[in-house]
Amino acid sequence: MSTSGFTNSSFTESGLLEHGGKLRQAALRYGIALEEWLDLSTGINPNGWQKALPPISTWARLPEDEDGLHRAACDYYAAQDVLPVAGSQAAIQALPRLYTRRSVAVLAPSYNEHAHAWLRAGHYVDLICAEQLHTAIDDHDVVVVVNPNNPTGVCFDVTMLLEWHQRLAARGGCLIVDEAFMDGTPDDSLSAYSDREGLIVLRSLGKFFGLAGARVGFVLAEKKQLHVLAQELGPWTISGPARWLATQVLEDYSWQTIMREQLKQQSQRLHSLLSDAQLIPDGGSLLFQSVLTMQATIIHQQLAGQGILTRLFETPARLRFGLPANEQEWQRLQQTLLDLDVSLAELSA
Amino acid sequence: MSTSGFTNSSFTESGLLEHGGKLRQAALRYGIALEEWLDLSTGINPNGWQKALPPISTWARLPEDEDGLHRAACDYYAAQDVLPVAGSQAAIQALPRLYTRRSVAVLAPSYNEHAHAWLRAGHYVDLICAEQLHTAIDDHDVVVVVNPNNPTGVCFDVTMLLEWHQRLAARGGCLIVDEAFMDGTPDDSLSAYSDREGLIVLRSLGKFFGLAGARVGFVLAEKKQLHVLAQELGPWTISGPARWLATQVLEDYSWQTIMREQLKQQSQRLHSLLSDAQLIPDGGSLLFQSVLTMQATIIHQQLAGQGILTRLFETPARLRFGLPANEQEWQRLQQTLLDLDVSLAELSA
Repeated sequence: MSTSGFTNSSFTESGLLEHGGKLRQAALRYGIALEEWLDLSTGINPNGWQKALPPISTWARLPEDEDGLHRAACDYYAAQDVLPVAGSQAAIQALPRLYTRRSVAVLAPSYNEHAHAWLRAGHYVDLICAEQLHTAIDDHDVVVVVNPNNPTGVCFDVTMLLEWHQRLAARGGCLIVDEAFMDGTPDDSLSAYSDREGLIVLRSLGKFFGLAGARVGFVLAEKKQLHVLAQELGPWTISGPARWLATQVLEDYSWQTIMREQLKQQSQRLHSLLSDAQLIPDGGSLLFQSVLTMQATIIHQQLAGQGILTRLFETPARLRFGLPANEQEWQRLQQTLLDLDVSLAELSA
Repeated sequence: MSTSGFTNSSFTESGLLEHGGKLRQAALRYGIALEEWLDLSTGINPNGWQKALPPISTWARLPEDEDGLHRAACDYYAAQDVLPVAGSQAAIQALPRLYTRRSVAVLAPSYNEHAHAWLRAGHYVDLICAEQLHTAIDDHDVVVVVNPNNPTGVCFDVTMLLEWHQRLAARGGCLIVDEAFMDGTPDDSLSAYSDREGLIVLRSLGKFFGLAGARVGFVLAEKKQLHVLAQELGPWTISGPARWLATQVLEDYSWQTIMREQLKQQSQRLHSLLSDAQLIPDGGSLLFQSVLTMQATIIHQQLAGQGILTRLFETPARLRFGLPANEQEWQRLQQTLLDLDVSLAELSA
């Protein structure tokens, strides 16, 4: 229950945290051309929404708040109010600045920008594993959960989360739930409860909609809280074309329904394929499968040597696999994993 | 030399500052359909760079730093180092957070987000008019200048600015120059000197390139300062498609050369046209003309009644006119101004 588990090894030279999706760096390191890689290092839907491009006029004019995005987001999330932000990352960084020094429990392992941001803003941060979180609720002012969790795939039950929120809110505390990977399973979301004081839900268009480049996310919370955050973030945080695209995808319910079904099948296929290669996932979401293994580093390197980029987590050693985009990529992953299987047997021999 | 000149009247209900480009609100207020307006309320080039749209792949992937944007910007600005940011607005908000409490002189009237951001971060802010700025240099830790200034069009000489910077830097102070409207007159820029300690130059693609919707700007400063700011802002602040577009426009030197010449002619035409209507500009840039007049509010309302939106500044009373986009718009503005001329004569009678 200290910050000691928050290692500096995950920082880059620039002082920013290391993330997945660093394909260019891998291409240089392994001497494999960019276009030859199968990039499974992100949890981004490889078949995202690509029906239309924003009109050129959206690039020219300053973005305006009254363009329909707010309404589309409230409807999609079944939320009373939302604040569009430049990716949930923008909210992750700004929220800690809205509080004076607090005692903060952050789920670990999970998306590492949460702990980073609260530490940076001068708060006391404890990293808490999923199993111990329920006991940490009463000792902290702010509790940050990622649901479903990334990279472990651990899911938290709605009833339990609402009970945690109630305990926190009764003391003036706050529960923050990062639902970046929730779009495939909306019944598990807290978004419909986000008007309750002391509850903040973060959503993103990056993963399910496959629009990580757009930098669009949403904060769902009571109106007063959103007002304070809007002032902190200032005007025009999202590009005009991204606002246009976001409005389209949030209103495209038929695409969403079909995509949920597709991702369920693909996620199951990835689970089976990894299991067949003796890499049995211990968790996952619709967009990734996660494998806890002492050999994570070696497997990561071997796959990279074959031009397949996965995401490596070092503490604890874990590999995360995103979804292949098409049948050719599925076949390539399967064949490479089967070849790898021999090495794995050798390693454990 | 106090903050009293910084009126609250310019705040909207949301607590954000009021800006130009609020066409939707004007359309509602004056009962004129959106598409019927001639919007001259911004200083944005109405014939901006529109040669190509970003490929759809840029929407899907997380933006990456190593995509060529940094190099293109260093070349275009003739700067040692730059930090791409989500519009200069992002830097305006973040820079004050990097300093402990300072005494800050901000040019006034000018772009009002500067004073707002320094006040918000808890600094002492004095609003200083252009004529008195040279005496304020030695009494302040940070001096913020907009050059050419918006909305007055006042220009500051490079040699004088460098001398101000030297006086500030000698005491550990900092000169911040917002060059959002500088692209038409690059010889007046401090960008080539921006590696000097205590000098920060802000640039933007919004105005000259006509890409206000893209949210791309740049901070030019010494490497150490940029590093600290990058940590404050965090990863992926600019959308992937906007990074792609920004790289194209910064490298399109032939478009830039032609556009500078076009804007010079159009700016001169706007000056003549306003002068002919007895609205003699007291300042301007290549992208706007600015008219100081006690009748600013009435003229603003009369023009809006005819579907022409200008930008009204209340203290002191001033109207800013952006450039019409085509010959039809030029004719419409000219005719409306001539009709207005009668009313002006009546007003002053």
